[in-house]
Amino acid sequence: MSRDDVRRYLIAYDISDDVRRTNVAKKLESYGDRVQYSVFIVDTRPAKLLRLRTQLIHLIDQSTDSILFCNLGTLRDNQRQSLDVIGRSRTITDHGPAIL
Amino acid sequence: MSRDDVRRYLIAYDISDDVRRTNVAKKLESYGDRVQYSVFIVDTRPAKLLRLRTQLIHLIDQSTDSILFCNLGTLRDNQRQSLDVIGRSRTITDHGPAIL
Repeated sequence: MSRDDVRRYLIAYDISDDVRRTNVAKKLESYGDRVQYSVFIVDTRPAKLLRLRTQLIHLIDQSTDSILFCNLGTLRDNQRQSLDVIGRSRTITDHGPAIL
Repeated sequence: MSRDDVRRYLIAYDISDDVRRTNVAKKLESYGDRVQYSVFIVDTRPAKLLRLRTQLIHLIDQSTDSILFCNLGTLRDNQRQSLDVIGRSRTITDHGPAIL
């Protein structure tokens, strides 16, 4: 997987139902790294992100739940500079977040 | 305020204490727009973002709370393309999100 193909996505969810929220969190954990309780960072190619997106659509109730996708650009763009945390932090590396 | 100066920031918080969480939400509401329960979009100049950041530091307990800042670049970069929601959505415009 070339670094040119890989993009960094921030994915945040807003789901009140415990079961659906747990299912979404488990799915996201298999693709990326948790940086906050309801925020994940996923480094992947756009095609794989599309697959994840389709899987997530089937896990949520679209009338009440919300999942936000934010495309932060290619890893080559040195996107580390675009993420910053105050308080309890987990460091984002080129290979995803590392829990400190 | 020139569009060249203004940057779009995604700000997400992870705060378990009700009082601190409410205070942070109120502060963020005065700077930007809520796109999820704990996610805001703030369009502002870097200097003003720094001021907001300092104010937020004083509102949280840095040993337990977390606030993530994600710099999405200048509005001129047409960052609308970088944000996408499935499920219950609020549309992000050039002038911030509009609740649908």
